[in-house]
Amino acid sequence: MSQSLLFERHKDTLEKGINASRTREYWTAYPESPSPRVYGEDASKDGEAAFKSYLNKNFTIDQPGTVGSVGSEKSPYGFDLGVTYPKVDAAALIAEVEDIRQDWAKASIEARTGVCLEILDRINKRSFEMGFAVMHTTGQAFMMAFQAGGPHAQDRGLEAVVYAYEDMVRTPAVARWEKPQGKRDPIVMEKHFTVVPRGIGLVVGCSTFPTWNSYPGLFASLVTGNAVIVKPHPGGILPLAITVEICRDVLKEEGFNPNIVTLAADSADAPLAKDLALAQEVKLIDFTGSTGFGDWLENNARQAQVYTEKAGVNCVIIDSTDNFRGMIGNLSFTLSLYSGQMCTTPQNIFIPEGGIETEDGHKSFDDVVAALATGVEKLNGDDGRACAILGAIQSEATRNRIAEYGGGDNVVLASRSVPMEGFEGATIQTPLILKATDESSYTAELFGPISYVVPSKNTTDSLSIVENSVKNHGAISFGIYSSSEDILDQAEDVACRAGVAVSFNLTGGVYVNQTAAFSDFHATGCNPAANAALSDTAYVSNRYRVVQSRKHI
Amino acid sequence: MSQSLLFERHKDTLEKGINASRTREYWTAYPESPSPRVYGEDASKDGEAAFKSYLNKNFTIDQPGTVGSVGSEKSPYGFDLGVTYPKVDAAALIAEVEDIRQDWAKASIEARTGVCLEILDRINKRSFEMGFAVMHTTGQAFMMAFQAGGPHAQDRGLEAVVYAYEDMVRTPAVARWEKPQGKRDPIVMEKHFTVVPRGIGLVVGCSTFPTWNSYPGLFASLVTGNAVIVKPHPGGILPLAITVEICRDVLKEEGFNPNIVTLAADSADAPLAKDLALAQEVKLIDFTGSTGFGDWLENNARQAQVYTEKAGVNCVIIDSTDNFRGMIGNLSFTLSLYSGQMCTTPQNIFIPEGGIETEDGHKSFDDVVAALATGVEKLNGDDGRACAILGAIQSEATRNRIAEYGGGDNVVLASRSVPMEGFEGATIQTPLILKATDESSYTAELFGPISYVVPSKNTTDSLSIVENSVKNHGAISFGIYSSSEDILDQAEDVACRAGVAVSFNLTGGVYVNQTAAFSDFHATGCNPAANAALSDTAYVSNRYRVVQSRKHI
Repeated sequence: MSQSLLFERHKDTLEKGINASRTREYWTAYPESPSPRVYGEDASKDGEAAFKSYLNKNFTIDQPGTVGSVGSEKSPYGFDLGVTYPKVDAAALIAEVEDIRQDWAKASIEARTGVCLEILDRINKRSFEMGFAVMHTTGQAFMMAFQAGGPHAQDRGLEAVVYAYEDMVRTPAVARWEKPQGKRDPIVMEKHFTVVPRGIGLVVGCSTFPTWNSYPGLFASLVTGNAVIVKPHPGGILPLAITVEICRDVLKEEGFNPNIVTLAADSADAPLAKDLALAQEVKLIDFTGSTGFGDWLENNARQAQVYTEKAGVNCVIIDSTDNFRGMIGNLSFTLSLYSGQMCTTPQNIFIPEGGIETEDGHKSFDDVVAALATGVEKLNGDDGRACAILGAIQSEATRNRIAEYGGGDNVVLASRSVPMEGFEGATIQTPLILKATDESSYTAELFGPISYVVPSKNTTDSLSIVENSVKNHGAISFGIYSSSEDILDQAEDVACRAGVAVSFNLTGGVYVNQTAAFSDFHATGCNPAANAALSDTAYVSNRYRVVQSRKHI
Repeated sequence: MSQSLLFERHKDTLEKGINASRTREYWTAYPESPSPRVYGEDASKDGEAAFKSYLNKNFTIDQPGTVGSVGSEKSPYGFDLGVTYPKVDAAALIAEVEDIRQDWAKASIEARTGVCLEILDRINKRSFEMGFAVMHTTGQAFMMAFQAGGPHAQDRGLEAVVYAYEDMVRTPAVARWEKPQGKRDPIVMEKHFTVVPRGIGLVVGCSTFPTWNSYPGLFASLVTGNAVIVKPHPGGILPLAITVEICRDVLKEEGFNPNIVTLAADSADAPLAKDLALAQEVKLIDFTGSTGFGDWLENNARQAQVYTEKAGVNCVIIDSTDNFRGMIGNLSFTLSLYSGQMCTTPQNIFIPEGGIETEDGHKSFDDVVAALATGVEKLNGDDGRACAILGAIQSEATRNRIAEYGGGDNVVLASRSVPMEGFEGATIQTPLILKATDESSYTAELFGPISYVVPSKNTTDSLSIVENSVKNHGAISFGIYSSSEDILDQAEDVACRAGVAVSFNLTGGVYVNQTAAFSDFHATGCNPAANAALSDTAYVSNRYRVVQSRKHI
């Protein structure tokens, strides 16, 4: 298909996306419901079959620099995937990509945008296949794997395309410049403005959200003309291998060299990220993962623009509520969802030591803690429902952490192992709730289903602790419950000074750990948890430059 | 005046600026003609008197952290200015600014934009005073000092305001988000989006263009809510002291703490830039100057977003022309203007060793070189005219460099000292032209009126050398003369790959070393000469973040 036809085909989606990002009203391009009415009668069955067809086989990608195979993913539901992927020689791969990337760099903005929108559309059509791939690498329950790994990730990818497209076309391709010269003829020039990519973009994926956290960087770099090397987490390769394959299919069909997008799978024993990140040709890096490696990238990959999402310590403040039951229900789900393995799950819940006011009168600190513990316990009381909410524990480190912290005398609610029918090897754990003893106990990130209830002197104290915590330890989410407008205003001020998004009084079907593309920004870029937001202009505008020519006419 | 009234007063300018930046057609807010009809009958006289009123006095600024006075500027026209400025204690100044900056941070986008536009308007009204201040610090001839130090600098400041304003208002302050829930009631939320500045911005000025190179960073940081500390070059304080005074006047009148903008004048003996740049509260740095210090800032001020314009080696390629006389005239003026003390002046002129084709037939390499030498010599033949074009040499280092390089046997045109009536102590020098012997002779920047004619095998060779030179040594400008469309296309490809703006066949009143705000970008940000362009979205979008709140309604 001609490149401008692809752009025309998806133009409506692009325009709606631009509009949504500007109004920040509700909008999504990719339906989150896995209903057969939306995705087709056989979509679920076909998706599962497609997922299974990858197992115990080599995932073939005909890309340069291949020197063998690699891959040892284990499903958190208790079986080896047995999939192997091309193992690449970093230097050879980069040399080849650098060599062939100019055709894509020189393609028109419309051509590149059309290709990216077509890729997203095809990924969307394979959302069930992706859902199973995400489920069996991350441990997310299927519904979440489908939504967060499928349509929600696709929305975040589209959002990056929308921002980048709008910023690129802000400068016209051609301008006529006519400077008056009094009584003499004006000086007239024709000027051309060309969007020029930075070079090669490297996307380093994480194990818990391989697609959701990678798509923004992948599509932002790709649509601005960069070649992209995708380096998945060794525990979450398959979803990104499928993604890379779709990218390559569309590129090839449109007459581009498919090596514009390549996969650099690796293993924990022989990691590739550092070698790739330090290559002079790599000019953009998108990373989600540990603070240690994020800081290393920022300090060492100095030839590149580095976008990092690292660890943080998210907080919730309980001041008062006129919907105690709603609050407890909302927080119970928030702490349980995907066993707290989200960068947005709250870890520390601050409650005044003197208790709080509610619609049913005063509740003591212990009353609130007990209600929360009971809420979490009951929500996960039925094994089947618990599995559907909790999913499985992705990593051994998280499993060990639950064991380590679960043995103390400050346990408010113990973590329970949940058996799952059909997946006997799955590690499924309900949340562990601890009571904080002193500040040093709760200021480091304890990734996974571990949270602290923290007694504070009062809400002013809670706000002050949270402000310092966000500034020093980072945070991606922040929630507060209060019936006082004044307290909410103070919380908004704290959020602005510390640089973190805040949710007020969530008691229904919106959770502090969830964000909606086109409306909610994910992270702010101004606290230690992340140096960029998904997505805003700052996230896209440094991925390319404008080169100009001018001549008299 | 109420803050929204200032915004209303200047809204038309803002809207025209937005439009111009999007069409990149000719537009300017501040007339470049120093005509009495534009600036008033007495403007020149009053401006000179205002300038003289500063001489041999203390320039009072009532700002915190003052610990004495500093200042020893010398006019390149041969006299001491005798102006002293507050000497600041860096830590004390930063602590105070950090303490008071929240009111400005919390002001509305419109309020801050109105204040910035009012400041620019007042600076514009004082363009003659500024012209004399710029002339007697930089050595620019008055006409250039007026234009580049006045209206052109103001245009670049406005351009930064325009880009920042448009990017900030891209996100609405409030949004209503309504998510359908099938047959149930939709989920409805109200979301607030607040622009939050990064902290304190530091602007480090240069000696040759104290206003032009400082205004973009100053206004980009200020309008996005940051406090700004202006650290001028010890040789060019006065223009920025006047600027800071005007900023403070307007801030105070509008009810803001004037310490939102402060001056940190220093001396070569006791420089302040490093101390200021390393402060944790300084989150943005704009620097124009040497590669050495620019690299130091990038490598050490890791807590800040650092924008640098450093050294480069600009090139011109002569391939062929159908207007030989126009080309020689244009290049002669280009090399002479402000004695080549511009970051955009070409240093290396590549000419095929076999000569070039012109409208008058073939010219040998030596013919072209001789014509250029004669062109430069004749242009500066009359002392009065020479002074008006060349201005004076700003620094001793440049003076010494001319002497050092003028003694070799590769001199094509010697530099002549020009006497200036009324300014007997002025150092005025015509351009020195050298013939390059080997590549090592011309790849380092020789700032000032020193250029090389470089014999190349042919134009393909010239293009290849220039591409590598820009990639390795940086460049802000690039010019080519050719009658072949194919060669021009090749040059545009080279420009895109190397990341430098290119001008084709300039033979009239536009020079390769001049750019027009709102139409021409200054630098690209993708070669070693600068890591950002003036101005584009990338230049403004990281100076603030958006913090969001959400609640059910």
